[in-house]
Amino acid sequence: MYTLYHHPFCPHSRFVRLVLGEYGLDLRLVEERAWERREAFLVLNPAGTTPVLSVEGVPAVPGVGVIAEYLDEVCGIEMGDRRLMPSSPAERIEVRRLMAWFNDKFFEEASNLLVTERIYKRFMNEEDGGGPPSTDVIRAAKTNVRYHLAYIGWLAQRRNFLAGDRLTYADLAAAAHLSAIDYLGDVPWIEDDAAKAWYARVKSRPSFRPLLSDWLAGVPASRTYVDLDF
Amino acid sequence: MYTLYHHPFCPHSRFVRLVLGEYGLDLRLVEERAWERREAFLVLNPAGTTPVLSVEGVPAVPGVGVIAEYLDEVCGIEMGDRRLMPSSPAERIEVRRLMAWFNDKFFEEASNLLVTERIYKRFMNEEDGGGPPSTDVIRAAKTNVRYHLAYIGWLAQRRNFLAGDRLTYADLAAAAHLSAIDYLGDVPWIEDDAAKAWYARVKSRPSFRPLLSDWLAGVPASRTYVDLDF
Repeated sequence: MYTLYHHPFCPHSRFVRLVLGEYGLDLRLVEERAWERREAFLVLNPAGTTPVLSVEGVPAVPGVGVIAEYLDEVCGIEMGDRRLMPSSPAERIEVRRLMAWFNDKFFEEASNLLVTERIYKRFMNEEDGGGPPSTDVIRAAKTNVRYHLAYIGWLAQRRNFLAGDRLTYADLAAAAHLSAIDYLGDVPWIEDDAAKAWYARVKSRPSFRPLLSDWLAGVPASRTYVDLDF
Repeated sequence: MYTLYHHPFCPHSRFVRLVLGEYGLDLRLVEERAWERREAFLVLNPAGTTPVLSVEGVPAVPGVGVIAEYLDEVCGIEMGDRRLMPSSPAERIEVRRLMAWFNDKFFEEASNLLVTERIYKRFMNEEDGGGPPSTDVIRAAKTNVRYHLAYIGWLAQRRNFLAGDRLTYADLAAAAHLSAIDYLGDVPWIEDDAAKAWYARVKSRPSFRPLLSDWLAGVPASRTYVDLDF
């Protein structure tokens, strides 16, 4: 049994939920408000960030990159065709490159900014940075979403899935970040048909269903969030 | 033969040089000024960042995290006792956690800020962000160095090396970032004896020598930079 310390709109947490969903592994979710810096949580992850995966008999697994590698080593390897990483080191390069692209670059330039401004700041005290969202930050992040969406479309036109022929961590990372900001209506799907068609395929997977039912009181989901045929 | 597209003061590039040095692998260095966004370099790494490792017959390996995992899979595994990652998934968690701590967190909060302000900005055009260093950024980064140094000291008091009994990627990552800013005189060694003693041990390894002979015209190294008994 896995326990995930997460936030429903943390894009990295969403990625881990998708991975565990694809592998059919049972998961208990514990919502963590990382900005509160709860002491017992800092013991699990001194960096103080979600997600943290807790597995019986093993030290806590902190951070999205460490969790992805750990799960590949202990579960992925037994999954045969359903493994979310290729088995050859050369093919793993591209999957890891794109996983880092979305989990680091897209996160910093877009998804984390939008989720922080529009969601986290509602729950933060003023001294932790809470308050009304910054329209400047939101505008800059939305500009960045457009070029990331174009990059996804460019990849999706050339490949069946983002890193090649098969579904991998790269697709789940991209889709996890997009899903968090799609809830907020911040993805201009109309600008890229190839990206939209790729996302529709990933979004219709059973592993995606739990994400689509995460709703936040006071922040309604965008019109097309749960729509598989958006 | 490996080719590394790097910058002599890029902490991530230094980490890869240390890893290849520990494994005794031959390396050709190509200096890349990432901020110039050279087109052929962007083909190797669309994210436009150093380091990128080029290996014959394999796609380019871009980014410090992807390179670390790739090298462990193709070289580390054959190195026996000299492998820089533990072999069990549970022990790998702590090494990867600390590798991310230094390569992501320390980089963002300290080493990248100091290297950018004090070195890269000298070579950048004004439109790329060049110009005189920002004293505010430098002050903030130096404050962050102090708490990272204390964390290294805390680990070094409890363990032989940062992630446990043996030298791992965690030590080389921490030492790589420290070495770049130690050149600039930005590490207050006097504040932490345990951190200093650990760094003296890592710095005296043969893999470190090429780093200590990287000097930059117009920016003299700090008094103790090359001193093994600082």
